[in-house]
Amino acid sequence: MEKKVIKEKIILGLDPGTNIMGYGIILVKGSAIKLLQFGVIHLDKFDSHELRLKKIFERVLSILDEFSPDEVALEAPFYGKNVQSMLKLGRAQGVAMSAALFRQIPIVEYAPKKVKQSVTGNGNASKEQVAKMLMTLFKFKETPKLMDATDALAVAICHHYQNGAPKQKKKSWEAFIKDNPGRVK
Amino acid sequence: MEKKVIKEKIILGLDPGTNIMGYGIILVKGSAIKLLQFGVIHLDKFDSHELRLKKIFERVLSILDEFSPDEVALEAPFYGKNVQSMLKLGRAQGVAMSAALFRQIPIVEYAPKKVKQSVTGNGNASKEQVAKMLMTLFKFKETPKLMDATDALAVAICHHYQNGAPKQKKKSWEAFIKDNPGRVK
Repeated sequence: MEKKVIKEKIILGLDPGTNIMGYGIILVKGSAIKLLQFGVIHLDKFDSHELRLKKIFERVLSILDEFSPDEVALEAPFYGKNVQSMLKLGRAQGVAMSAALFRQIPIVEYAPKKVKQSVTGNGNASKEQVAKMLMTLFKFKETPKLMDATDALAVAICHHYQNGAPKQKKKSWEAFIKDNPGRVK
Repeated sequence: MEKKVIKEKIILGLDPGTNIMGYGIILVKGSAIKLLQFGVIHLDKFDSHELRLKKIFERVLSILDEFSPDEVALEAPFYGKNVQSMLKLGRAQGVAMSAALFRQIPIVEYAPKKVKQSVTGNGNASKEQVAKMLMTLFKFKETPKLMDATDALAVAICHHYQNGAPKQKKKSWEAFIKDNPGRVK
């Protein structure tokens, strides 16, 4: 009797910001995608920038420990309004990434355009269009009110569509030679 | 017989960058300042931005665990050439800060100008002038070659001169009323 192995993978999508941080966790099982949880972490209630960073670190760490994702996908804009806001955004990203680095979980970054392209087929899609596509995918009945959470969920989906890049990148030398017979002489 | 209690405090100064990160650790005992260690972490040998962040996190954590500083002082520029470099700098700062946040050690930030002002009396002092002042203070015989390490050391000294700000900030309500009799009616 033949046994079929169905691979399971948990992906955590993160959309770190300085006022709000979105997260979305999916379970990929064969061709099925199941939504495990998604939500936002409100940071604007904390006056101090340092307290916000502390909150990001602690919450990301607790999400990692609760769901044990195999991979983390990060929505990471590379451009912004001004240097001040980019410094703050960079710090928020760095703190969120640290939690994953600390737990030895691989991180992959995606530009917002890439996420939109991957989920809706249109790199310039609106947040509403992204949310609508997720509604169809996960059979939500109402539009999720928190767009930051849907963005985070979208980056997790995007990462899944990109076929879990990080592990494929780490090919063995043997696999590289096999795949690229012309490159090695 | 009267006993005099001499307070000891260990301060870690950090100057996080994307190519190189400087650190300096001082022990303050009464009015004496002792240099415990200073150095740099080279990050430019790592191609991947992610590996660099991982290295920052791990090294800062190991320094914290080796020296158990009471406080961390961070040299943090608020302006930069462009949004891209500020995002990267923000990430490096965020990762370094995470390590301290994780170990529950208070962080205080100082702008480069403030550090120079505090150490040399001139906010526009050159790196060489800062290094020279540190040479006098710690009786170095030669100019330290690694300016990033002296910058980190300078921010630790600056924090000491500022009188360990974080703990003073957290004044009790009673102390506030006592200090500001006119502010409370």
